[in-house]
Amino acid sequence: MTPDEFRAAAHVLVDWVADHRERVATLPVAAQVAPGEVARGLAPHAPEEPEPLADVLADLERVVVPGITQTQSPNFFGWFPSNAAPASVLGDLASSGLAALGITWASAPALTEVEEVVTEWLRELTGLPAGWRGAIHDTASTACLVALLAARERASGLSQNRGGLQGEPAPLVVYTSPQAHSSVAKAALLAGFGAANLRAVDVDPVTRAMLPDALAAALAEDVAAGRRPAAVVVAVGTTGTTAIDPLAELAPIAARYGAWVHVDAAMAGSALLLPERRWMIDGIEGADSLCWNPHKWMGTILDCSLLYVREADELVRVMSTDPSYLRSAVDGEVTQYRDWGIPLGRRFRSLKLWFHLRLDGVEAIRARLRRDLANAAWFAAQVEAEPDWRVLAPVTLQTVCVRHEPAGLADPGAGPGAGPGAGPGAGDALDRHTLAWASAVNDSGLAFVTPSQLDGRWLVRVSIGAEATEHEHVARLWDLLRATAGAAVASSSAAASSVASATA
Amino acid sequence: MTPDEFRAAAHVLVDWVADHRERVATLPVAAQVAPGEVARGLAPHAPEEPEPLADVLADLERVVVPGITQTQSPNFFGWFPSNAAPASVLGDLASSGLAALGITWASAPALTEVEEVVTEWLRELTGLPAGWRGAIHDTASTACLVALLAARERASGLSQNRGGLQGEPAPLVVYTSPQAHSSVAKAALLAGFGAANLRAVDVDPVTRAMLPDALAAALAEDVAAGRRPAAVVVAVGTTGTTAIDPLAELAPIAARYGAWVHVDAAMAGSALLLPERRWMIDGIEGADSLCWNPHKWMGTILDCSLLYVREADELVRVMSTDPSYLRSAVDGEVTQYRDWGIPLGRRFRSLKLWFHLRLDGVEAIRARLRRDLANAAWFAAQVEAEPDWRVLAPVTLQTVCVRHEPAGLADPGAGPGAGPGAGPGAGDALDRHTLAWASAVNDSGLAFVTPSQLDGRWLVRVSIGAEATEHEHVARLWDLLRATAGAAVASSSAAASSVASATA
Repeated sequence: MTPDEFRAAAHVLVDWVADHRERVATLPVAAQVAPGEVARGLAPHAPEEPEPLADVLADLERVVVPGITQTQSPNFFGWFPSNAAPASVLGDLASSGLAALGITWASAPALTEVEEVVTEWLRELTGLPAGWRGAIHDTASTACLVALLAARERASGLSQNRGGLQGEPAPLVVYTSPQAHSSVAKAALLAGFGAANLRAVDVDPVTRAMLPDALAAALAEDVAAGRRPAAVVVAVGTTGTTAIDPLAELAPIAARYGAWVHVDAAMAGSALLLPERRWMIDGIEGADSLCWNPHKWMGTILDCSLLYVREADELVRVMSTDPSYLRSAVDGEVTQYRDWGIPLGRRFRSLKLWFHLRLDGVEAIRARLRRDLANAAWFAAQVEAEPDWRVLAPVTLQTVCVRHEPAGLADPGAGPGAGPGAGPGAGDALDRHTLAWASAVNDSGLAFVTPSQLDGRWLVRVSIGAEATEHEHVARLWDLLRATAGAAVASSSAAASSVASATA
Repeated sequence: MTPDEFRAAAHVLVDWVADHRERVATLPVAAQVAPGEVARGLAPHAPEEPEPLADVLADLERVVVPGITQTQSPNFFGWFPSNAAPASVLGDLASSGLAALGITWASAPALTEVEEVVTEWLRELTGLPAGWRGAIHDTASTACLVALLAARERASGLSQNRGGLQGEPAPLVVYTSPQAHSSVAKAALLAGFGAANLRAVDVDPVTRAMLPDALAAALAEDVAAGRRPAAVVVAVGTTGTTAIDPLAELAPIAARYGAWVHVDAAMAGSALLLPERRWMIDGIEGADSLCWNPHKWMGTILDCSLLYVREADELVRVMSTDPSYLRSAVDGEVTQYRDWGIPLGRRFRSLKLWFHLRLDGVEAIRARLRRDLANAAWFAAQVEAEPDWRVLAPVTLQTVCVRHEPAGLADPGAGPGAGPGAGPGAGDALDRHTLAWASAVNDSGLAFVTPSQLDGRWLVRVSIGAEATEHEHVARLWDLLRATAGAAVASSSAAASSVASATA
């Protein structure tokens, strides 16, 4: 394809994308396909000869668009916001167009230095301590693994240069909250610590935040038993309820044992752009690393996860490689991002942050985040005020955990043993009701929410913060939830009556 | 930014990208900036208010374009080809525009199923065995780490579910060639095996391919000493010289010990699209995984690395997570790519493969690869025929390792101890000459090549295969190399005479 053929095709595609973004509010929010349906709609073999762009776009329209959940819809309240601000899409296009190869500073100095500058912009904007340095990773899962590898090597005195974890005299241990994201446990297992050396530290039953005393006790117990604390992963904004672990209290406890403190603020990090939210990372000077994802709420398109570290050398000594074909005269004077993470080659991902911040401006992004916080507070207040509805966890950010608990479906209580494994009962009926109305909401195509478990019982997470979501969309969601949950009760009662009369 | 503002800006940007691609042949190939120069050219703080697109594009032009090595230039012969076919750039734009969120099948069924279909297309096109399944990773470095983690867990009977590598009774060992990419050693260290348990198996002094007898001996020795072979990483196309390890002989040896066989064909994999090159992976049915990068020679824009596995379950049991907020009614019927690698969230990267294959067609891609192989053979023949020039390794693909060895600069010989550490001598003078003319070529801006070491001595890698590189560009490169190396000799002789007369 020549540059001019590209030009013509790209103009057509840009219009398609802009049209898609315009209509996205009118599309069903949830993907509308059954397993295998997309695959069956595609050709079974690659074409030997070129196909026209029109055919590819027709397939996009026919197969792909109905096959994705529309995270850019104003009616998307699922998982966490996954915004892809148009300004950041432009940066992504510039990156693809330039096609720089990031394998060493010399291969693309601008790729390295724009990343250094933009991560420094964001360090300042989020109130991280001076001197902390950032790099872009694909996701917080990867960033957490990188942090735990650095922690492992610090705690073991660089065991990787000897026999690895295999030669270690005493087990290294990782501590986190049971409310932490699943990627934390995954990272600990991949890093080789082993499930037996991963501690789920108790949390407060109301706030769901890690209890400092419980961390101190767990650390002391392990040390007494001859084990070595390697890392404490502090969740600032858990996935389930956006609980905020008290970093200022936890970091000094970890410091007593020299454990690496990694702060997982994947979702909540966007809120650090707001000075009034900086309290969430009070104590950060005692941490070693922090990760947050502009590709969530802030809205720089996936994949864009930032890992900041207090001492970059602690990553570099673990991740560095220096083959002859990557050497250049300026080594030592420049940053080699290949030594800050797992992959060697990197895309020019900093351009999407650079475009996003410059074309939108920081103040507009802050205004949007404050809008979402206000919408979440408003929504939570409606739920609290409504009979039979409950907010199940403190609303620390923009995610509200709710349940409809109509008369006749008992409060399932809380605590261990209350899960589905506890056998059938009133809690199970409530679980069925919750899942039923959540599915009905999602099946309607009018909005999308995420069922999730807390203390073994289902609830519904309403995560506000799609870029297009205004107050009116939240108000309509609240109407939809009440109507749908009410209808589920009616239909379930009708079914129960029908069963009752049939068996009478 | 509204969809219509995006539309207007994106049309401007598309023209900028197309213009850039048109002029790329006229730009200096190597980046033209000193360390820190790009960073100093950028604003020190993020803007509070929006800036116009024109300002951002002006900075792209002023700071970024001179700050990258132009890998899309027809005169780019560095590292390995890093093609970004315009058709694949369109796919990347479609992906950014749709902004699908890949965290579970349900979040974007099309993201999962297009990836399944397209990796199956490429399995068939590259002659991998039926039943092997692929997924897209960012780079071969990550893919190798994933393979070694799967190997570690297979060899240890899922130690991660117990005490991890820390609880293992006998060390697990990884085997590879000293010519393997630096990412293999890095992956082994990150996976926790330890440097003491990474074996560099001897290679043939001419082909640089791993010696089966040496592998057999290394395995036997470790097993006799109570260690356990976990993985053999076979390089099909090494980075230095594109040496091809003999998989058909190596896999059965590894199989005797149950070791996981990972084939790193990051560069060479593109050539598997040519039926006449399938011999490179003879014996693949005895391997467990293979990685290759469409983002190199084939030219689907970075990042697009494919990891194929014989048994996907071997990845899934190591990588799977199942938090409640990611569950859906169809779990069990569908592929969850989050359980095939490290990150949870994934971009819709299969669209760039889908667009590339459909808009260009496979036959045109094959024709381009054959063109490059012919150009490399022609170039190697010119070098071989020229006095004072040598080809230093068999040309197995499209990379030619050359050296200019003029009279007076002795053949440095080969083998351990011949490196710079061996002290000054004729070999060092030749090294200085090689680095001098390679730098002069790169500084000219007319072409870009990569110096690299073999047996401790510098040579120059000429890696042919940029999408725009035609025979005429290779012919001009050959003229440039001869003229530059000749000039370096003359200037060095003049400097020597001048020193001699000054001290006489």
